[in-house]
Amino acid sequence: MRAIVLPKFGGPDVLELREVPRPTPGPGEVLVRIVASGTNPVDAKIRHSGTWAQLELPAIIGYDASGVVEAVGPGVTRFREGDEVFYTPEIFGNPHGTYAEYGVVPAAIAARKPARLSHAEAAAIPLAGGTAYEALVRRLAVQVGETVLIHGGAGGVGSFAVQIAKAAGARVIATAGPDNQETLRALGADVCVDYRAESVVKAALRETGGQGVDAVLTTVGGSTVPGSTEATRPFGRIATILGCDGDLTPLYLKNQTLHGVFLSREGRRLEELARLVEQGKLRPLVDAVLPLEAAAEAHRRLDSGHGRGKLVLAIGR
Amino acid sequence: MRAIVLPKFGGPDVLELREVPRPTPGPGEVLVRIVASGTNPVDAKIRHSGTWAQLELPAIIGYDASGVVEAVGPGVTRFREGDEVFYTPEIFGNPHGTYAEYGVVPAAIAARKPARLSHAEAAAIPLAGGTAYEALVRRLAVQVGETVLIHGGAGGVGSFAVQIAKAAGARVIATAGPDNQETLRALGADVCVDYRAESVVKAALRETGGQGVDAVLTTVGGSTVPGSTEATRPFGRIATILGCDGDLTPLYLKNQTLHGVFLSREGRRLEELARLVEQGKLRPLVDAVLPLEAAAEAHRRLDSGHGRGKLVLAIGR
Repeated sequence: MRAIVLPKFGGPDVLELREVPRPTPGPGEVLVRIVASGTNPVDAKIRHSGTWAQLELPAIIGYDASGVVEAVGPGVTRFREGDEVFYTPEIFGNPHGTYAEYGVVPAAIAARKPARLSHAEAAAIPLAGGTAYEALVRRLAVQVGETVLIHGGAGGVGSFAVQIAKAAGARVIATAGPDNQETLRALGADVCVDYRAESVVKAALRETGGQGVDAVLTTVGGSTVPGSTEATRPFGRIATILGCDGDLTPLYLKNQTLHGVFLSREGRRLEELARLVEQGKLRPLVDAVLPLEAAAEAHRRLDSGHGRGKLVLAIGR
Repeated sequence: MRAIVLPKFGGPDVLELREVPRPTPGPGEVLVRIVASGTNPVDAKIRHSGTWAQLELPAIIGYDASGVVEAVGPGVTRFREGDEVFYTPEIFGNPHGTYAEYGVVPAAIAARKPARLSHAEAAAIPLAGGTAYEALVRRLAVQVGETVLIHGGAGGVGSFAVQIAKAAGARVIATAGPDNQETLRALGADVCVDYRAESVVKAALRETGGQGVDAVLTTVGGSTVPGSTEATRPFGRIATILGCDGDLTPLYLKNQTLHGVFLSREGRRLEELARLVEQGKLRPLVDAVLPLEAAAEAHRRLDSGHGRGKLVLAIGR
């Protein structure tokens, strides 16, 4: 099968299209003919230096797929040949990513693709949509009527987060650069903040009468984490999907909670996301669909801090 | 009335015994004849420099009291004259602390003193016991059967935390210096770790078969917060009652939650603590009772990092 292989860590041009053996499903696993693979910032991070993810090279990268079950391994009852599925495979120590014509995955972490979406759309969901869902629904437990601040609302995770928070009945303040303000509005954000033009903390305080928001999701990490303690009310909650820099003293003085979120693999979460898609409450924001051969071009865009929805690689039919 | 007044920020010797006017209860407030006042590390922190607590001088410090209701203000139905109560008054911007013969406090934040305790014992509970209860029961939500690590288990907050975690059915790993190992054992800790003699992280991992503990309370803050991410399992919870230093990247990679805890004032929490005392599940660890005049001596001990239970000031009868 054809696959994009990472032979060594480096820039986008280290990625190579190669012919590699098709994998075989073991007990509890399914073989999926991958029709589309999503791309994520973590792909570029691993391409640049994947030792933190315990990756041994050469490896196929990519952590989002939508496709068709080609065969099932022993003991699999959840799916059968021909089922359309989507999934995000393990990142740590996994050399069998989704930039490939076929993938093998534990049946337990896949779910049926939402019927109303194309494979390219479905492939944009699992990792980023799953991260947003995990952060907002399970960890922050956002409640109807709350005000939620989302840092990076037009990005991969952020664009799902804005929609999920709105669907949960929250009032959403979202940030993006000047080029993505229209995208934020289209996603349904109630208040769109251009973080280059004004202080996000001040905007959050102004919009909540000085009280601070109930919850924050930052997809940016770094200094936005301590900044979020200022923007959030006492006993409020903050979730980050990246590390943080700076003084977190206000976290204890304000009785706040900080949730670190890194997606674990789970079919049930994907089923819950698919339910939102089928109910018309969530749609992936696909920026562009490129052919598998253009993986290096996709990575150049990821490296540039591409911030409007998802780039998807089209692999099969 | 007699009171210990802080006329300027500085060392223990700035504290002055003075005669000051007795306060009068306003609507919703009670006047309490204070029989004993607890002392806490925050007292010494404020004495040294209380601008962070928005304190204007001169001020009476002290944030723990047990005594007898002397009079009630308009609208108070919760208590009447002669009731024995205990409470912890507001810290921020409050110049009317508990190192005094009388205190005025909102009735809503006081509770009936447990009958089985002396005033000196009861005065040792509200701030430190309330902080431990808030952290373990409400924020960490420790469950029966979990393993909990408590950094600083022989100190003011820690000695309550060990007992509350045990009463909640958890297995408790607690740390202290070499002089306080016997205290940890007496409080009921299952595993006592001398943090000077061995790595707390290694001990926590060893005691959990390498998995990490379910929850941590650190009363020490600083580098013990990032250290706690190493000692805790994925999706585990950490609570800190102080700020933190160091790299918190593992928090997101391990899907952990960090709770900042700073006591808010609430009568109901004290009633819940009193219930534990009445059921014989919690007792204050009183190290010494000193007269009000010896406040400076108490502060010298606080400054030394005194780590075994509480120092109490005896004020009346």
